[in-house]
Amino acid sequence: MYNREVKLTGHIIDSLTLPRALDLIMDMGGDFQILEFKVGKRKKDTSLARIKVSAESESLLGEILDELAEIGAMVVEIREVKLEAATKDKTLPADFYSTTNHPTYIRFQNEWIPVENIEMDCMIVVDPEIPKAIIKPIGQIKKGDLVVVGREGIKVMAPQRPRGKKGVFEFMGSGASSEKPLQTLIKSIAQEVREVKSRGGKIAVVGGPAIIHTGSGPVLARMIKEGLVDVVFAGNALATHDIESALYGTSLGICVKSGEAVARGHRHHIYAINQINQAGSIRDAVEKGVLTKGVMYECVTNNVPFVLAGSIRDDGPLPDVITDVIEAQDEMRKYVQGVDMVIMIATMLHSIAVGNILPSQVKSICVDINPATVTKLSDRGSAQVLGIVTDVGAFLPMLYHEINHKPGD
Amino acid sequence: MYNREVKLTGHIIDSLTLPRALDLIMDMGGDFQILEFKVGKRKKDTSLARIKVSAESESLLGEILDELAEIGAMVVEIREVKLEAATKDKTLPADFYSTTNHPTYIRFQNEWIPVENIEMDCMIVVDPEIPKAIIKPIGQIKKGDLVVVGREGIKVMAPQRPRGKKGVFEFMGSGASSEKPLQTLIKSIAQEVREVKSRGGKIAVVGGPAIIHTGSGPVLARMIKEGLVDVVFAGNALATHDIESALYGTSLGICVKSGEAVARGHRHHIYAINQINQAGSIRDAVEKGVLTKGVMYECVTNNVPFVLAGSIRDDGPLPDVITDVIEAQDEMRKYVQGVDMVIMIATMLHSIAVGNILPSQVKSICVDINPATVTKLSDRGSAQVLGIVTDVGAFLPMLYHEINHKPGD
Amino acid sequence: MYNREVKLTGHIIDSLTLPRALDLIMDMGGDFQILEFKVGKRKKDTSLARIKVSAESESLLGEILDELAEIGAMVVEIREVKLEAATKDKTLPADFYSTTNHPTYIRFQNEWIPVENIEMDCMIVVDPEIPKAIIKPIGQIKKGDLVVVGREGIKVMAPQRPRGKKGVFEFMGSGASSEKPLQTLIKSIAQEVREVKSRGGKIAVVGGPAIIHTGSGPVLARMIKEGLVDVVFAGNALATHDIESALYGTSLGICVKSGEAVARGHRHHIYAINQINQAGSIRDAVEKGVLTKGVMYECVTNNVPFVLAGSIRDDGPLPDVITDVIEAQDEMRKYVQGVDMVIMIATMLHSIAVGNILPSQVKSICVDINPATVTKLSDRGSAQVLGIVTDVGAFLPMLYHEINHKPGD
Amino acid sequence: MYNREVKLTGHIIDSLTLPRALDLIMDMGGDFQILEFKVGKRKKDTSLARIKVSAESESLLGEILDELAEIGAMVVEIREVKLEAATKDKTLPADFYSTTNHPTYIRFQNEWIPVENIEMDCMIVVDPEIPKAIIKPIGQIKKGDLVVVGREGIKVMAPQRPRGKKGVFEFMGSGASSEKPLQTLIKSIAQEVREVKSRGGKIAVVGGPAIIHTGSGPVLARMIKEGLVDVVFAGNALATHDIESALYGTSLGICVKSGEAVARGHRHHIYAINQINQAGSIRDAVEKGVLTKGVMYECVTNNVPFVLAGSIRDDGPLPDVITDVIEAQDEMRKYVQGVDMVIMIATMLHSIAVGNILPSQVKSICVDINPATVTKLSDRGSAQVLGIVTDVGAFLPMLYHEINHKPGD
Repeated sequence: MYNREVKLTGHIIDSLTLPRALDLIMDMGGDFQILEFKVGKRKKDTSLARIKVSAESESLLGEILDELAEIGAMVVEIREVKLEAATKDKTLPADFYSTTNHPTYIRFQNEWIPVENIEMDCMIVVDPEIPKAIIKPIGQIKKGDLVVVGREGIKVMAPQRPRGKKGVFEFMGSGASSEKPLQTLIKSIAQEVREVKSRGGKIAVVGGPAIIHTGSGPVLARMIKEGLVDVVFAGNALATHDIESALYGTSLGICVKSGEAVARGHRHHIYAINQINQAGSIRDAVEKGVLTKGVMYECVTNNVPFVLAGSIRDDGPLPDVITDVIEAQDEMRKYVQGVDMVIMIATMLHSIAVGNILPSQVKSICVDINPATVTKLSDRGSAQVLGIVTDVGAFLPMLYHEINHKPGD
Repeated sequence: MYNREVKLTGHIIDSLTLPRALDLIMDMGGDFQILEFKVGKRKKDTSLARIKVSAESESLLGEILDELAEIGAMVVEIREVKLEAATKDKTLPADFYSTTNHPTYIRFQNEWIPVENIEMDCMIVVDPEIPKAIIKPIGQIKKGDLVVVGREGIKVMAPQRPRGKKGVFEFMGSGASSEKPLQTLIKSIAQEVREVKSRGGKIAVVGGPAIIHTGSGPVLARMIKEGLVDVVFAGNALATHDIESALYGTSLGICVKSGEAVARGHRHHIYAINQINQAGSIRDAVEKGVLTKGVMYECVTNNVPFVLAGSIRDDGPLPDVITDVIEAQDEMRKYVQGVDMVIMIATMLHSIAVGNILPSQVKSICVDINPATVTKLSDRGSAQVLGIVTDVGAFLPMLYHEINHKPGD
Repeated sequence: MYNREVKLTGHIIDSLTLPRALDLIMDMGGDFQILEFKVGKRKKDTSLARIKVSAESESLLGEILDELAEIGAMVVEIREVKLEAATKDKTLPADFYSTTNHPTYIRFQNEWIPVENIEMDCMIVVDPEIPKAIIKPIGQIKKGDLVVVGREGIKVMAPQRPRGKKGVFEFMGSGASSEKPLQTLIKSIAQEVREVKSRGGKIAVVGGPAIIHTGSGPVLARMIKEGLVDVVFAGNALATHDIESALYGTSLGICVKSGEAVARGHRHHIYAINQINQAGSIRDAVEKGVLTKGVMYECVTNNVPFVLAGSIRDDGPLPDVITDVIEAQDEMRKYVQGVDMVIMIATMLHSIAVGNILPSQVKSICVDINPATVTKLSDRGSAQVLGIVTDVGAFLPMLYHEINHKPGD
Repeated sequence: MYNREVKLTGHIIDSLTLPRALDLIMDMGGDFQILEFKVGKRKKDTSLARIKVSAESESLLGEILDELAEIGAMVVEIREVKLEAATKDKTLPADFYSTTNHPTYIRFQNEWIPVENIEMDCMIVVDPEIPKAIIKPIGQIKKGDLVVVGREGIKVMAPQRPRGKKGVFEFMGSGASSEKPLQTLIKSIAQEVREVKSRGGKIAVVGGPAIIHTGSGPVLARMIKEGLVDVVFAGNALATHDIESALYGTSLGICVKSGEAVARGHRHHIYAINQINQAGSIRDAVEKGVLTKGVMYECVTNNVPFVLAGSIRDDGPLPDVITDVIEAQDEMRKYVQGVDMVIMIATMLHSIAVGNILPSQVKSICVDINPATVTKLSDRGSAQVLGIVTDVGAFLPMLYHEINHKPGD
């Protein structure tokens, strides 16, 4: 039998870390002995368990330790991380380590060094000179990159649910439902927004065109103008319909004020694209006085960066759209590492895309009227996202109202 | 060939009445000749078409005329309505006329008399003495009732879409969608509510327990208190959770303020039922000072009648619940003929039930986060209902805010 | 400090019973000391934990023990159950014990006696003469009934997830999703159906009218004829549309073969009800040769009992419908205690109703195309139900095919 | 007043073309006089209406005629089409004509010439030398392109609903619903597939990854192998999970046979991408014997072309994915003009993308368990698509079974 001792610490009872660990070991065909078990008695106390894990082969033991690492178990006897060079671009050594979206450290030259640009389903590449460890997606791996393999010397700080009074990001759990008290939820999010901004934090908004269709565009524009939004991730549709709405008062040909179809209105989005093409870019259109209001206008005027990622259903698209999706991902990566909160609204595609590259400690909210959007986001690994099943046309106005409404009022 | 001449008048072009009529005749195997066709040129003008309908058998001609009658075509040569006595309780003559939910008249003793208590899928029973024609559902038919049979002497006033600027109840069409400008819609409904109340009209609210779960109970209670609601149709669940919320601050054991689960909270709804059983009834509980707030409290205090219809999923139920569903239907029938507007919120069961017995000219709104609820309501014959796909937790607060917000503000 | 020692045994690690217990104690403001903790090492081994629970007041200790009892913790020092007489019909002593849907025993006269007719959110009434303990819903409580109060002397056998290879009822967890391998699932259910029938077990089908609308009525009829179904729970809609389909070939006026609307077809369901009213009952219609095929015909012919529960949206209803919902519940209660498996298809209302009165050890499947139906069933306490999000029109034909397809083929 | 005479011919009554035309004229503020109206009496007869349209300004008259043209009205006095040169790449003359997805002709040099590569929301560019008229999306417009402007000399052949027995593509209308007889629908589609293939037609499949998750991958692979599919449009996800399934037996880490999560399985999709990157491409992996079964394998082996369009949520992506979305659109455009039938399965993104570039006469089916997908497709202009709300895991096996099941069996 091959053995290793692992240690679990923190809120391992309430976060279900301990039972999941024991479960895992046995499900995978291993065995264990609990060497020590101290349960935190009070709400703030953490617990500790030392467990001897055994398996019949070294490779099986390795696999079990690998899974345990993902939920935060740490091998007690610390060894150095193992590296192996990529033999070809975009190609990985067979035993590469696949990352989680949690804070991660590697043991290199007898020190724990933090891994930068945390992102799930990626690889850790080490520059031994500096030394430095950074995350790379498979598509960015270059021949010769030193890729972390195996499971020694890797420490993952999996998030733990603190005991006691929970914040908005904890109490909902994964259970997206429309049968929850909406106003309470929105108050908590507004509070979070105020806190993030008051300590100089950054907020990203990921938005779909329904923001414009439901008439909430002006609210988002105001939020950008007032400095509540630091970066906007969207697609051609949101930008086009926002500009259509600014130029013609319609969104997909429907008047955003009256909700009525406007004669010939379905052509307006092509007119809007034509206007921006004529001007050269969205910024050019603002500077030439063609575009004078709306979400994109406020982004330009207030120097709030935006990333418009292309999609195969795009008409046009606008000249500002990054039509290569891998380039668009990389452009989004530049911003996500620095944000403190993400609000995803009415877009499954862009929400999953941002969720894919987002570290787990960033507080994220996903708002959609379709419960499936929120569920899929969790299923795809973004378990930390707070899902809210509600109407986008109601959410943004209510949120804006609460943000500007001081708690003591 | 058997022939009859029929006449179509009104907005028969824009309401698509004429093409549907011609379509129907040909689909059913009949033939037609357009004898006269005057098209209204201006927005307010009505059109007129006189059509000779032909069929190979008298029975086929009858069937075609029957279908035509439902969309408002009237046989030009007026004959008396035909009556036949029911030979047994709850049993109909073979050729009985099945009603629509549109205003209907019958030709009896050379006069057009209005049919009372309009309701779809029912029968017209005539009392020749007075004379008087009333609607009865099949379950209320008594042996000897004179039931209208065939299709002569029946005039149905099918609704027509007026040309020009459309109100909120016209512009949406049947297309329930969450991608519509919500605030505009709510403003229009608030305007309609104000108009109905200012002319002394009556408004019914049909509600499901999600009103309470989402924290909107206090808003509905306030609307009742302020005289905006004239009758409440609901089930045991809404009443129980409203009372649970008033007594224990929870709904299904979830705190309606914080959204958190309360320890032992899932028993609260049984406690609530026990309290009311102890008191005797909801009114008794109000009078004994046990129940001091909430939707049911405001109903009792402001003498707003409520019908709580039983369902097989009921716990308890509360003593005020009518456990026999046919009795409950009849109790609801007492109110629907007198209401001018119905707001259905978050309950497919009760909304379809009310839709079933509602005349088509009553303005109705069905609010649900699930598009299927709205779609089913239309499929079941309540085509006049304006469906709004939104979050109940947002709708009621926004509606209340708009109702109290004068348009000039 | 007030103390009691409790014991947890079984698969308390993998079933998460232990962490939930510790969590509960601390969340409710109590404290604990782990006196003994033996972890089952192998897949089949059970674990054991002895825990001293402390609280500042006797009532708080009581509340904590109450919650612990629900998840299967047993107080080590066994005391007699406490009883208190109801002072009024339908009214409970303040401290009544509210049941779970798990097997339950009470300590009475120094013996553990099983509680009969297990059902959640109900009360335990004891007849001390025999002695005998039975479940009663609040509505059946009579003045003088001896009701179990407090939490002493109650043992709940909460279900535990066995380690290792899981059956179909375990592997899905609560996560209803349409993105699961459907054919595998259906094979497992077919296997379960064969097993239940081969050991003489009973299967209940709970069905909504979509079975008929989607053209699956003949499959269900065949299953009844072949002895695969032992009782049918449904409403007026399923029975009416089944009979409409047998007599006229339509369901809600749509031809169930071609899917096309049939002229005047929307009247067919009233014709169907009229035919049955004329005959007297569904059985009479079968015996008179009026009804010669379909789901209801096969029930009558094969003496498979059915309970048709009324709902406020019913047209008619058929004479066999129990219009009083409490009577209908009681009629369903007669059957659910004896069934071994329940298949719920396309009806949220009836599924929740049956789920409410079903013991947790009955294997249950809920099939619906709307994920919300399955989710709600779980939220309402029927956590044991296996939810399958699929098309009813596909499920029944595929299930029937698999049942008749021997595994070795 | 400015006048023009227009003519409507065909099934203008049952297709509602006439009333929509009159409605349009009046809604837009114009006036009309019906000069001639001949109604087709028998099912196969077409009707004819000559209408004089009037408006107060020439530009308003133009706008009205423009709208009328879209529904098939033709100006009686034929004038030449007007052309104007684009002054800049991707930029259009102000009065450009925006296309529908219906067959279109332009009047050029006294002849009607057909417009090639029909696609909606695009422009018609004329090469006067040949002469030739082709569709270009705005993004492909080059400086100097002669773009059709105004509305003279354009003839649109809007589809008309034939009277009488309707095929599967007509009877469903736009009403996507899960309450329709599924087996009948699938039989009709199977029949259509057989007909298309027997006359040498081409079928495109547009697929999402749920095909693989639900275990239907092998069915699609078999359909490709048997020549039923002529081109596959999908994304990185379908291809990756198909290859993951072929190499490791899982899809997103879930075993596609048992439905159980496999230890470390969530890394399998990265392994799969790594294998293909190592080989060079999907074709290379097939040729090197790495990939030996599945959807992509059968495409390569049977020379069925596939277009894998990138999306910002892609992991990897596979080397065969076209990461530039505009390039991907253009690649899809190469195939859609030649297909006779499109089956869209479980992907809103790719279905809308294909719907955007598809001529209206191509028979299309969109299968999804979420009614919103189908509804959105219609709202975005692809009104001709037959929506089927069902489970993908059931649809493909049932369709395959029906295709191979001769009607006479």
